[in-house]
Amino acid sequence: MRIFTAQINPTVGDLDGNTEKILKAIRRAKKAKADVVLFPELTICGYPPEDLLFSPLFVQTMHDKLLLIQKETEGLFVVVGLVRKNPLEKEKALYNSAAILCDGKLLGYKDKTLLPTYDIFDERRYFEPGEDQKVFEYKGKRIGILICEDMWQHGGGVLFTNYIRDPVLEIKDQNPDLLLNLSASPYYFAKRDFREYVFAPCAKTLGCPIIWCNQVGANDSLVFDGFSLYMDKNGKLLQSAKGFEEDDMITDLEKEICSTSFPYDPLGDLYHTLILGIRDYFSKQGFKKAIIGSSGGVDSAAVICLAVAALGKENVLTVAMPSQYSSESSITDAKQLAVNLGVEMITIPVDEPFQEFKNLLKPFFEGKKEDVTEENIQARVRGIILMALSNKFGYIVLSTGNKSEMALGYSTLYGDMCGGLGVINDVKKTLLYDLCRWINEFREGPIPENIITKAPSAELRPDQKDLDSLPEYGIVDTVLEEYVENCLSIEKIHEKHGIEKALVQDLVHRIHLAEYKRRQASPGIRVSKRSFSKGRIFPIVQRWN
Amino acid sequence: MRIFTAQINPTVGDLDGNTEKILKAIRRAKKAKADVVLFPELTICGYPPEDLLFSPLFVQTMHDKLLLIQKETEGLFVVVGLVRKNPLEKEKALYNSAAILCDGKLLGYKDKTLLPTYDIFDERRYFEPGEDQKVFEYKGKRIGILICEDMWQHGGGVLFTNYIRDPVLEIKDQNPDLLLNLSASPYYFAKRDFREYVFAPCAKTLGCPIIWCNQVGANDSLVFDGFSLYMDKNGKLLQSAKGFEEDDMITDLEKEICSTSFPYDPLGDLYHTLILGIRDYFSKQGFKKAIIGSSGGVDSAAVICLAVAALGKENVLTVAMPSQYSSESSITDAKQLAVNLGVEMITIPVDEPFQEFKNLLKPFFEGKKEDVTEENIQARVRGIILMALSNKFGYIVLSTGNKSEMALGYSTLYGDMCGGLGVINDVKKTLLYDLCRWINEFREGPIPENIITKAPSAELRPDQKDLDSLPEYGIVDTVLEEYVENCLSIEKIHEKHGIEKALVQDLVHRIHLAEYKRRQASPGIRVSKRSFSKGRIFPIVQRWN
Repeated sequence: MRIFTAQINPTVGDLDGNTEKILKAIRRAKKAKADVVLFPELTICGYPPEDLLFSPLFVQTMHDKLLLIQKETEGLFVVVGLVRKNPLEKEKALYNSAAILCDGKLLGYKDKTLLPTYDIFDERRYFEPGEDQKVFEYKGKRIGILICEDMWQHGGGVLFTNYIRDPVLEIKDQNPDLLLNLSASPYYFAKRDFREYVFAPCAKTLGCPIIWCNQVGANDSLVFDGFSLYMDKNGKLLQSAKGFEEDDMITDLEKEICSTSFPYDPLGDLYHTLILGIRDYFSKQGFKKAIIGSSGGVDSAAVICLAVAALGKENVLTVAMPSQYSSESSITDAKQLAVNLGVEMITIPVDEPFQEFKNLLKPFFEGKKEDVTEENIQARVRGIILMALSNKFGYIVLSTGNKSEMALGYSTLYGDMCGGLGVINDVKKTLLYDLCRWINEFREGPIPENIITKAPSAELRPDQKDLDSLPEYGIVDTVLEEYVENCLSIEKIHEKHGIEKALVQDLVHRIHLAEYKRRQASPGIRVSKRSFSKGRIFPIVQRWN
Repeated sequence: MRIFTAQINPTVGDLDGNTEKILKAIRRAKKAKADVVLFPELTICGYPPEDLLFSPLFVQTMHDKLLLIQKETEGLFVVVGLVRKNPLEKEKALYNSAAILCDGKLLGYKDKTLLPTYDIFDERRYFEPGEDQKVFEYKGKRIGILICEDMWQHGGGVLFTNYIRDPVLEIKDQNPDLLLNLSASPYYFAKRDFREYVFAPCAKTLGCPIIWCNQVGANDSLVFDGFSLYMDKNGKLLQSAKGFEEDDMITDLEKEICSTSFPYDPLGDLYHTLILGIRDYFSKQGFKKAIIGSSGGVDSAAVICLAVAALGKENVLTVAMPSQYSSESSITDAKQLAVNLGVEMITIPVDEPFQEFKNLLKPFFEGKKEDVTEENIQARVRGIILMALSNKFGYIVLSTGNKSEMALGYSTLYGDMCGGLGVINDVKKTLLYDLCRWINEFREGPIPENIITKAPSAELRPDQKDLDSLPEYGIVDTVLEEYVENCLSIEKIHEKHGIEKALVQDLVHRIHLAEYKRRQASPGIRVSKRSFSKGRIFPIVQRWN
């Protein structure tokens, strides 16, 4: 039996376009003499459709598209994901479902049983849990079908939740010979390893191979990394689709696969995730060109490299906006970066408008010292310039704040936070340095060494350094990771890392205080287990921390 | 039997402060010789606690506070809301619960059965549904307890959901003599009537009186309006607590209440909701002073009136920022408004920095016509000025965009959208006019008539009027209300209102296109059934509408 795993990149809500992709994949599967075609979760509408699901027409149109697809399935067993109306009188009106099509007929549906409602997921908002598990016979094989989360409880991969049902055990009773899983599993740093860890026990329990089809592509903040896979009944990974692009994985169940290895480079995956996040944000909206403020610092350098890789150097404009506080080396470094990458850089000094605002406000600021106000004015003048170029020429501004800054509010709202997409706003500063070194090692060293080695500075007042206002980034990032991503308590962070309790407490307090800024930040690309952009819901006004 | 309904205003996460409020209410109840004390839903932590619930210490501390409260309950039957750990192995680790305390003892818990997971609610993210209903005997009465949503299914008040359980019917089997309901029911326009409509069938089914305790106060975007109530077994409203402030409602079940009427003024409620939204956003964060750009238009006029009512005229600074495109009457109107309200107004013309930016960008804009770019620069210059004053003196900027503008993106990101709180960003333009007329009728006419009667304009280019870019606000608001708030399809809106289908389609498309702007808008005060600030989750990148 030959399985064709169609790892496609759907656009949310693009029912026409996604159906076209499905039909093309079916044609390719026929050419490849496949027996079975497997698609990712919610194939027809793309994942996550969010509140588009409250439109009955949207759901109905998915069903109309299914009829079109059904017609094209002669000689095939096709499993495609969609939302279907719940025919029963239940709490929610919809199922997250897979249609099983065979030889032009609809054999039935398998509804997702476990509905993740934590982190970035809110499936209970829309869906009713599926009732039971189903196995379908085809060409002498008993094929079981599960959807994404259905397989995660068994392998111990769910968060904040302890489902009482285990669809893997439920379907085991029906003795499947093969298990197909439709998924939309978003990337986070170093998750790839974890998937093998979760799926292997499922294969072993079922005693049959698993084929897992993941969505690929970015939809808003979420990047789906692909890497669909084929695992044998012993939980051994035998085959993997490509990451970060559409791919057809063809698996011949009868053919023995010699042991191969699957190289895995977490920093490479991070790099490709960010590129895909940028590329799809632009292409799925019909934009081509990005504009980025280039400060000569490591944050903007990384974003410029990523934008060039995602969009092409001809589509990236960098803008140096020096002020009286900018060091000579900042400008030189920014220029050198542009030369290395072959991107255009224009220079617009900000001192005049900055001075103009200071004059304008002088009568009102009489007797007051310069403070963060003046720093913010500079950052906001730069924001106006970038946004003006964006408005006039149709660029999207990429903002360059990193996660450590976003955590502590070390950034200017409406200033450097301006932008359509916050490329690295889920990348901690320490990880960003690793990423820059990775880029320089594997991408022909575009980032001038000085950018990576000099002390970070916002350069908004004379001789300013980040370390004047913040503890070392190593400490910031440890607290950030443990508190925000791993939900450890202040006490436990103190015990585990030996960081003074008062300092942990202070950093946690600053994280909460900056919530109001993050609420107005540009959406970012999620690359961690818990991003500020999506999946973390905190009050602005609260008095706990 | 005397019931003391303690309609309190908790701050989310303020376990110390909220417990203090609870203890004080218990003391007042004792003084009032009450038998029973009823608090709102999740009293100890305030509603909604959001992801604070993922901290085990947070949940444990609530339990510690309960022990403190328990000690103070001699001679009383007290029902207080809190989150408790789920002792069973279930999907979610927590219950949204009520502790029943009596004479210093914990009689038991009632766990919320129906967990709203739609609109602004995401209770399935945190909670497990309660198993069963309980009735507690006290002083010869059988007292049933339900929590908020538990009572809404029976009366037909839930959205996007059709619970299979009905706690009202379940508890009816236990023959309660009195039903107590702990709630956190947020305001939306004209909801007060709807509550009576929902609760009356519950009282009739149970054949016993209902006492409903609602939270009061604002937490972020949500305003809880109070109006706790006592309804007899025939569904007749007999008593109501005050709206928009803390109140103790004392109900003597044995005493006959002569028929009274409950005056209801929807525009008055809207006015008080917005004021409470501002007041609590400031006071719960320790801020006092607001700054508002005063354009002489109806939006800023309304926000200034509301801010003065919420914070006091001495705490409001208005700033006129005229440009070459401002009409004479705009400045006069803004001045007159400030005089009428007795608030300070300063004037900072924006032409110079605007010109400075144009000069700076001239080399790059060569050969390009003036367009929306220049309009946005003006709006952003104003944003910088307001934010600079905010930074220097500790004002919170109140942004003045209305819901119709937010819907269509008729606003400048990082310009007039700057602000800590978007006071009217859930108020449609047509409703805003009604509100302004209400203010002038009932609040001694502070808004100059010319502000209300002149044609709306952003005044960002010569002789600009909103109607140049938008259809009439009557049409915009009809489509907005039906599409966003009532989830009607384009087809149905066309049929129901006779608005050309292409126009409806165009407006819907513009609503979706503006999603990226709204994602960076200041949080607003929710006053409609579906606000952009909270409760509406849409992708930025999508191709459905």
